[in-house]
Amino acid sequence: MVSDNKHWSARFAEPIDELMMRFNASIPFDHRLARYDVQVSIAHVRMLGTQQIIARQVCDKLIGGLEQLAQKIAADDFSWQLSDEDIHTSIERKLIELVGEDAKRMHTARSRNDQISTDIRLWLRDMIDLQCKLLARMQLALVTQAERHVDSIMPGFTHLQVAQPTTLAHHLHAHCCVLTRDTERLNDCRGRVNQLPLGAAALAGTGFAINPQQVADELGFERLCANTMDAVAARDFAVEYVAVAALVMVNLSRLCEEIVIWSSQPFAFAQVADSYCTGSSIMPQKRNPDAAELVRGKSGRVAGHVVALLLMTKGQPLAYNKDNQEDKEALFDAADTLSSCLQVMEGMVATMKFDVAAMRQMADQGYACATELADLLVRHDVAFRDAHEMVAKAVKEAELRVVSLNELCEDYLPELTGLTASELRRALDVEQAIAARNMPGAPAPEAMQKLLGKKREELENTLRDK
Amino acid sequence: MVSDNKHWSARFAEPIDELMMRFNASIPFDHRLARYDVQVSIAHVRMLGTQQIIARQVCDKLIGGLEQLAQKIAADDFSWQLSDEDIHTSIERKLIELVGEDAKRMHTARSRNDQISTDIRLWLRDMIDLQCKLLARMQLALVTQAERHVDSIMPGFTHLQVAQPTTLAHHLHAHCCVLTRDTERLNDCRGRVNQLPLGAAALAGTGFAINPQQVADELGFERLCANTMDAVAARDFAVEYVAVAALVMVNLSRLCEEIVIWSSQPFAFAQVADSYCTGSSIMPQKRNPDAAELVRGKSGRVAGHVVALLLMTKGQPLAYNKDNQEDKEALFDAADTLSSCLQVMEGMVATMKFDVAAMRQMADQGYACATELADLLVRHDVAFRDAHEMVAKAVKEAELRVVSLNELCEDYLPELTGLTASELRRALDVEQAIAARNMPGAPAPEAMQKLLGKKREELENTLRDK
Amino acid sequence: MVSDNKHWSARFAEPIDELMMRFNASIPFDHRLARYDVQVSIAHVRMLGTQQIIARQVCDKLIGGLEQLAQKIAADDFSWQLSDEDIHTSIERKLIELVGEDAKRMHTARSRNDQISTDIRLWLRDMIDLQCKLLARMQLALVTQAERHVDSIMPGFTHLQVAQPTTLAHHLHAHCCVLTRDTERLNDCRGRVNQLPLGAAALAGTGFAINPQQVADELGFERLCANTMDAVAARDFAVEYVAVAALVMVNLSRLCEEIVIWSSQPFAFAQVADSYCTGSSIMPQKRNPDAAELVRGKSGRVAGHVVALLLMTKGQPLAYNKDNQEDKEALFDAADTLSSCLQVMEGMVATMKFDVAAMRQMADQGYACATELADLLVRHDVAFRDAHEMVAKAVKEAELRVVSLNELCEDYLPELTGLTASELRRALDVEQAIAARNMPGAPAPEAMQKLLGKKREELENTLRDK
Amino acid sequence: MVSDNKHWSARFAEPIDELMMRFNASIPFDHRLARYDVQVSIAHVRMLGTQQIIARQVCDKLIGGLEQLAQKIAADDFSWQLSDEDIHTSIERKLIELVGEDAKRMHTARSRNDQISTDIRLWLRDMIDLQCKLLARMQLALVTQAERHVDSIMPGFTHLQVAQPTTLAHHLHAHCCVLTRDTERLNDCRGRVNQLPLGAAALAGTGFAINPQQVADELGFERLCANTMDAVAARDFAVEYVAVAALVMVNLSRLCEEIVIWSSQPFAFAQVADSYCTGSSIMPQKRNPDAAELVRGKSGRVAGHVVALLLMTKGQPLAYNKDNQEDKEALFDAADTLSSCLQVMEGMVATMKFDVAAMRQMADQGYACATELADLLVRHDVAFRDAHEMVAKAVKEAELRVVSLNELCEDYLPELTGLTASELRRALDVEQAIAARNMPGAPAPEAMQKLLGKKREELENTLRDK
Repeated sequence: MVSDNKHWSARFAEPIDELMMRFNASIPFDHRLARYDVQVSIAHVRMLGTQQIIARQVCDKLIGGLEQLAQKIAADDFSWQLSDEDIHTSIERKLIELVGEDAKRMHTARSRNDQISTDIRLWLRDMIDLQCKLLARMQLALVTQAERHVDSIMPGFTHLQVAQPTTLAHHLHAHCCVLTRDTERLNDCRGRVNQLPLGAAALAGTGFAINPQQVADELGFERLCANTMDAVAARDFAVEYVAVAALVMVNLSRLCEEIVIWSSQPFAFAQVADSYCTGSSIMPQKRNPDAAELVRGKSGRVAGHVVALLLMTKGQPLAYNKDNQEDKEALFDAADTLSSCLQVMEGMVATMKFDVAAMRQMADQGYACATELADLLVRHDVAFRDAHEMVAKAVKEAELRVVSLNELCEDYLPELTGLTASELRRALDVEQAIAARNMPGAPAPEAMQKLLGKKREELENTLRDK
Repeated sequence: MVSDNKHWSARFAEPIDELMMRFNASIPFDHRLARYDVQVSIAHVRMLGTQQIIARQVCDKLIGGLEQLAQKIAADDFSWQLSDEDIHTSIERKLIELVGEDAKRMHTARSRNDQISTDIRLWLRDMIDLQCKLLARMQLALVTQAERHVDSIMPGFTHLQVAQPTTLAHHLHAHCCVLTRDTERLNDCRGRVNQLPLGAAALAGTGFAINPQQVADELGFERLCANTMDAVAARDFAVEYVAVAALVMVNLSRLCEEIVIWSSQPFAFAQVADSYCTGSSIMPQKRNPDAAELVRGKSGRVAGHVVALLLMTKGQPLAYNKDNQEDKEALFDAADTLSSCLQVMEGMVATMKFDVAAMRQMADQGYACATELADLLVRHDVAFRDAHEMVAKAVKEAELRVVSLNELCEDYLPELTGLTASELRRALDVEQAIAARNMPGAPAPEAMQKLLGKKREELENTLRDK
Repeated sequence: MVSDNKHWSARFAEPIDELMMRFNASIPFDHRLARYDVQVSIAHVRMLGTQQIIARQVCDKLIGGLEQLAQKIAADDFSWQLSDEDIHTSIERKLIELVGEDAKRMHTARSRNDQISTDIRLWLRDMIDLQCKLLARMQLALVTQAERHVDSIMPGFTHLQVAQPTTLAHHLHAHCCVLTRDTERLNDCRGRVNQLPLGAAALAGTGFAINPQQVADELGFERLCANTMDAVAARDFAVEYVAVAALVMVNLSRLCEEIVIWSSQPFAFAQVADSYCTGSSIMPQKRNPDAAELVRGKSGRVAGHVVALLLMTKGQPLAYNKDNQEDKEALFDAADTLSSCLQVMEGMVATMKFDVAAMRQMADQGYACATELADLLVRHDVAFRDAHEMVAKAVKEAELRVVSLNELCEDYLPELTGLTASELRRALDVEQAIAARNMPGAPAPEAMQKLLGKKREELENTLRDK
Repeated sequence: MVSDNKHWSARFAEPIDELMMRFNASIPFDHRLARYDVQVSIAHVRMLGTQQIIARQVCDKLIGGLEQLAQKIAADDFSWQLSDEDIHTSIERKLIELVGEDAKRMHTARSRNDQISTDIRLWLRDMIDLQCKLLARMQLALVTQAERHVDSIMPGFTHLQVAQPTTLAHHLHAHCCVLTRDTERLNDCRGRVNQLPLGAAALAGTGFAINPQQVADELGFERLCANTMDAVAARDFAVEYVAVAALVMVNLSRLCEEIVIWSSQPFAFAQVADSYCTGSSIMPQKRNPDAAELVRGKSGRVAGHVVALLLMTKGQPLAYNKDNQEDKEALFDAADTLSSCLQVMEGMVATMKFDVAAMRQMADQGYACATELADLLVRHDVAFRDAHEMVAKAVKEAELRVVSLNELCEDYLPELTGLTASELRRALDVEQAIAARNMPGAPAPEAMQKLLGKKREELENTLRDK
C-alpha cells in the first residue's frame, strides 16, 4: 500500500493503485508552479485574516511559514514526492511540518479547482511578459540587420521565382511587422488571463465572507472572474495562448525556411554563424543551419499542442473535469519552446552574414524589371492589360535569344513599344525601380530608413519599460 | 485547347492542362468575394482618377461599369466560368464587355496579390461583425432562460459527479461568460484584419504616385499595412480568425454535451424542442437532440481548418505563394459553420424545456452539502483539513447505512462533531447553502438576478448598435 | 411549415425549424453515395426475398424499381430535395413513386445506421482501388524520368546543403519508394473497410431471420462486422483512411517543395511545363510552378480533416450519434483532394524538364567529395574519426584559399595525408564516387537501372490487373 | 567556450553558442535509445569485421567494449552530458575511454543519419510488440467482464437516448472489436518499421563493401530499405505509428466517456474502484472517476503529436534535415501515453462494478421495445414504413397518458393494430427481444457467449506467444 498524504482519502476504502498514482500525479510537471502557489496562498491567507475568517495570529504564522517555503523554492531547496499528488498538497504538507496544525486552516474557503487556475494564470502572465520582451529583442535584431542593408538590393520572390527587385531591409522589415502583430496577440490574450478565479472554490463560490478583490489587488489581477462555475471550468485562456504561440512559431518558420534556402550553395545569399550551425559525423565539409531547421521543425510541436487542448476541451461538461490536468504540459512546452526559439532566432539573426553581391546579381535575373517596363508603357497611355501583354511578348523574345531585357533595348523593344532606348533603359534600371517605390512600407531606401528608425525607437522603449 | 482569358498567358507556349485548369481555378469558391472585389476596384479606380494616373472620364466610365456589375452580382445575375481562373479576371473580363478597352486600365498600380488580400479582409470584417451579433443573440437566449431559473436548484457537477448545489441560472450564466470572451477575441482579431494591403502590388509597392489612404478611407480600413511585402505575404489574420472560431466551437461543444446528457432518460433534466430534434428510421419512439450533436461534431471541422492553415503557412518563404489560395475554403467553411451553429444554438437554447423537479431532486443526491458541513465545523474553529476528514468519515457511514447525511443528524453527526441536530440540519439545507453564496458570480438568486440584468442591458445595447 | 418526407415524423408535434432542416440535412453532400445506396438496397431486398421475409414478387418488383433508379442516377437524371433529409429517404420516396406502396417494405430489418455505414464502405473501397492505381501511375511517371537520368549527376542535399554527389534517378526513386509504402497503407486500410455492417440495424441486430452473408457475397465484402453495436458506432476505418491520405499528401509536399526550389532561378535544376504553371497579373515575365505549390498547400487541408475526425470521434458514447454525419464531407474532400493531386502530380512529373548541366555543375560545389577523401584515408588504415578530422582541416584550408579540394591535391593534401596526388584525385572524382556506390538502393547507375526495371515491371503489372 | 566532443567540430572557427547547444542537443531525451544504439553498433562492427573493412581483432575489441557499455546502460550506470550533443557521440566517447583509439574506427561506412533511423526502428518495434500485448490484456479484461454479463440487460443508446434493449456483454464486446482493429493497425505498421536503413550512410550509401543483409539478420529486420536516400529521409513510419496511437486513444476515449457517464449519479450504472478514483480537497464526499477522465483528456496529446509530425514532415526537401530531430519526443510521448493508458484501462475495467438492476430498470424506459412492435406488425404483413408510423402514434398516445407501451396493450394497441393483447405483450418483452437477436454479433446470450469464448481463446494465445 502506498503511503498517502492526499487531501481526500478519508472516505476511500482501498488505497490508490500504484500505477494509477503515477498516472494521476501532476507533481512531476506542476512543481514549476510552486512559487506562484505559495504567492497565492499568502494573499489568500492574508485575506482570510482581514476578513476574520481565521485568527490574525494564525494568519501571521501561516504567512511566515509560506514565506520560508517561498525562499526554499527560490533556492531550489524543496523536495517533491510523487505521493503528494500535486503541488498544493505538497506545499500544505510542508507547511504543516513547519508551523504545525494551524496550517490545516489554510484551505478554508477555497478548492484546488480555483487554486490551480489562479496559479496557472499568474505563471502565464509572467510568461507572456517575458515573451513580449523576447519578441522585441528579436525584432531589434531584425531592425539592426535591416539598417545595415537599406541599400542592399535583392530579388523579391513570389512563388520562389524572381519577381521584382527589392532590398534586404524591406524583406527583413516584413518579418518584423509580423512579429508586431504577434506581440499584440499576446497582449490581447494577457487581458483574458489576468482575471482572478480564486474564491470560486469548487464551483459555486463559498459561504464564507471572503473578499476576492483584496486578493486580486495583492496579486495584480485586473478583474475578478464573472462567474464562479466558469472560473474553474474554463481553460479557453490557455487554448488561446497556445494558439497564439503556434501562430508565432509558423511565422518564425517562414523566416527559417528562407534562412535555409539562402544558406544553400546555389543561393549563397547568407551564412549562418558557426555558433548556430552543426556539422556532420560523416561529411567533414558540412555546415548545417541547424538552428533554423530546428525552429522550423518545432513549429509542429506547438501546433500539436493547440490540437491537444482543443481535443481536451471538446465536449467537456461543466465544471471542472480531470481532463484539464492535461493543459499544463502542453502549455509549459508551448511556452518553453517559444521562448527558446525566440532567443535562438535573435542570436542567429544578429550574427548572420549576407552576401550582398550574390543577392544583387540575382536581382537582375528572371527579367525582374518587366513590371517597370509595363508601367512605363502605361505612363505613355497604353492600357495596363495591353502593356502587360506587350512585355510578355518581349520576355518571350529575350528567352529565345537567351538575353536580358536590357539587351533588347537597341532594336526589339523600341520597335515593339515606340519608346527610345534610353527611356527603356531607365525603366529597366534596378536602382531606379527601387528608388521610385517610396511610399511608406515600400523598399525605397529613404522611406525604409525612416520606418526602421521609428520601429527601433518603439522597440527600445518597450525594452526599457519592462 | 482550352480557351483562355487569363491575365498572364501571353508569354506561355503551351495551353494549360485541362485538369490543371480545374485544379488551379479558385472561381468555384471565390465568387462569394465578388461584391467585395467590385467595391475594392471602385475605390482603387477612384483613387487612380484623383491621382491623375488615369484620366477622369476613364475613371467615371469604369466606376459606372463597376456599379452595374455590383448590381448584377447583388441580383445574382452574373455567370462565372472556370476558364476565368479567378474572380478578378472574371470581373475585368465582364467590365471590358461592358465599357470596352478602357477597362484594361483598371489593373494599373496593383496586382492580384494585394487585391485578393483586400477582398478577403473586407469579407472577413463583415463576417466578424455578423458573428458578434449572433453571439450576442445566443447569449441573450441564455440570459432569458437563466432569468426564468434563478431559483431553479440543480446539482453542480465536477467530474460529472454531483458536487454542490447550484442553480440553473448560475450554470447558464457560466456559458454566457465564455461567449463574452469569445466576442472579445473576435473584436481583437478584427483590428488586425482591418488594415489595407492595396498598393502593395506584387510585393514591392508601385512606382505610380498612388494614395492608399484615400482607398482606406473609402473602404473603412483603420490603417495601412506597414510593409508592402508583408501585406501580400501574410495570412496570419486568417489563421487567427479560424483559431478563434475553433475556440468558440469547442466552447459551444461543452454546452451541447450537457444538452445531450441532460436529455438522456436517466438525467431527464431537459428536453430539446421537436423543431431541433430528429427521429429514427427504425425506432418509432426516438427523439434525438440532433442539433446539439451536430454542433458538437462540427467543432471538429473548424479545429481541422486551424491545422490546415497552420500547415499551409509553415515554411512558406515570402512573399506570395500559390499555397495561400488554400486559405479561402478553410476560412469560408469555418465562418459559415460558426454562423449556422450560433443561429441553431440560439433557437435550441431559446426553446429548451427544463424539468425543474428532476434537477431539484438530483441536487440532494451524492451528499452535495458535505462541503457545507465541513464549513460549519470550520466556523466552530475546527481546522478545515480536519473538518474535511471528519465529514468524509460521516459520508462513509451514510453510505454504509444507505441514508442521506440528513438522516445522520440525530445521532451520528452530533456525536462526531459536538454540534446540535438543528445546527447540522441548517447546514445541510440546500436552499440555505445557495442563499449563502451571494458574492458576485455565485449562485445566490439575488446576486445572480442583478448580474443577469446587467448582462441583458449590455447585450441589448450591442444588438441595438449594430 | 416545411413539407415533410421524413421517416420519423409521425411522433413529432412541431415541424422542424427551417434553419435546422438545412443544418441537419446531409443530402447536399451525400447524394454522391446514391449509386451505392441503391446497390445496397438491391442486395438487401434480394436477401429479404430469399429469406422469405418479404414475398418473392414484392422482392422482384422492388429490385426492378431500384434498377431503374440506378440507371437514372447513372444518367444524372435524379433530383434531390432538401426536405428529404438524406439519400436513403430520397431513394425510398422515389421508389414509392415508381412501384407504389410495396416500397415501404424495403426498410424491413435494417436502419439508416447500418445502411449509411455500408454505403460509405462501398464508396471508400472503390476510392481506395482508384487511388492505388493513381499512385501506380504517378510512380510510373517518376520511374520514367528516373530511367532517363540514371547518369545525371546532381548534388545530394542534407539540410539543403550540398552533401554528396548522387544521381537524379536515385533521388526520384527515393520518392517512388515512399509512394510504395503509401500504397501498402491504403491496401491495409481497405481490409478494415471491406467488412459488412448491414444487418446491425439500429445497434442490436434484428429479430428477423436475415442472412448477412448473402448480402456480403453479393456486394463483395470480405467479412461481416463482428459486433452489431460496433458495426454502427465505428468510424475508425474513415479516420484511418483520412490519416493515410494526409500522410500521402505530406509525402507529396516534399517532392513539391523540391520542385519549387529546383525551379527557382538560383537553382535552375528543373522547369515545370507551361501546362502546370501560371503567370502573374502584374509581372509579365512570371512562370510560377503553381501545381507544385497547390499540392503542397493542399497537404494542409487533408491533415485538417484528420483532426476533424479525431475530434468528432473523441468522447462519443456508443452507438451511433449524429456527430458522425460530419465524417462524410471530411472523407469526400480528403479523397477528392488526394485523387486530383495524384493526377496533377503525374502530369507535372511526366512533363518536367531537368537542366542536367546545372545539376552536374552544382555537384562539384560544397566539397561534396569530402567523405570520399575520408574513406580513402580509412582504407589506408586511418581511424575514421581521425580521417574525418583531417579532411575537415583540409576543407578549412580550401575555404581560406577559395579553391576546391581538387586544387589542394598538389601540395597541401599529399603533405597532410601522405597520399599521392593521383590517389587523391581519384577519390575526389564525382563519377568514381557514384560508381563505387553500387549496393542495391545506392546511386551507381547499373544498380539503379536494375532497380528501376524491376519497379516498372511491378507497376505495369499493377496497372494491368486493375 | 563550451568543451566539445562533437564529431564535426574540426572545421568550425567559432564554438557553438551555449543556448544553441542546449537547443540543439537531443541527449536529454534520446538516451532512452542508448541500448538500441549499442546493439546496432555491435551488429555494424561485426559486419565490418566479416567484410574485412576493419581488422578482426579490432572488431573483437570494439564488440567487447560495446558489450560492457550495454551492461552499464542496462544497470543505469551511465552518465550523459549535454556537450555530447547526442547519444551516438556519447557512446563513441565512452568507447574510446574504454578501448582506446580503435573506437574511432567504429563509425566507418555509416552516418548518424542511418544510425538514428535504425535505433528508432528497433525501439519502435519493441514498443509495438509491447502494446499489442497490452491491447490483448485490456481486451481480456473486457471479455472477462462481458462473460459475467451476458444476461445483464441494459438499454442500448443512440444519441444517448434509450434506443433498444441489449446486454452489457454486447456493449463491452463492441469495444473489444475496436481494439482488435487497432491491434491489426499496429501490426501493419510494424512491417513498415521493420526495415533496415543502416548502410545508407549520409544518403548515398557507401563505397565500402558492406553487407547490410548480415546486419539485418542479426537485428531481426525483415528487409532492407530499398533506396538509401529514402532510408535516411523518411519518417513516415513514425507518423503512421503516432496516427495509429491517436486512433487507439480516441477509441479508448469513447469507453472512458461511457464510464464517466455511467458513474454519474443519475445513471449509476457503474462504479469505478476506489483505486482508480480520486477525491476532492474541498468536497469530502467526492469519488471522481479520474482514470477515465485522464485517458479521455490524454487522447488530445496524442492527436497533437500526429499534427506535430505532419507539420514537421510537410515541405521537407530530401534527404535528412534537422527538423527530424523533433520526431523523437512526439514518438516517445505518444508511445508512453498509450502504454500507460492501456495499463490503467485494463485495471479500471477489470475492477469496475456494475449495477445490473439500475441498468435493467432503465432498459424499460424510453419505449425501448417500440421497434419490436413495428417488426411484429411487419410479420403480420404491414409494410415496415406503415408499421413505423403506427407505432409512433402509439408512443405519442403513451406519452400523453404518461404510461408505458405495455400499459396500452389492453385497449389502445389492439384497436390500433388488430393484434391481441398477448401477442403485443410478447413483442414488448425485453428478454424476448434480446433472445430473438441471435445472429452472430447480436446480443442474444447464447450467441454472445460463444463469441466471447472464441475471443478469449484468441487473446490467450496471443499472450502466450509473446
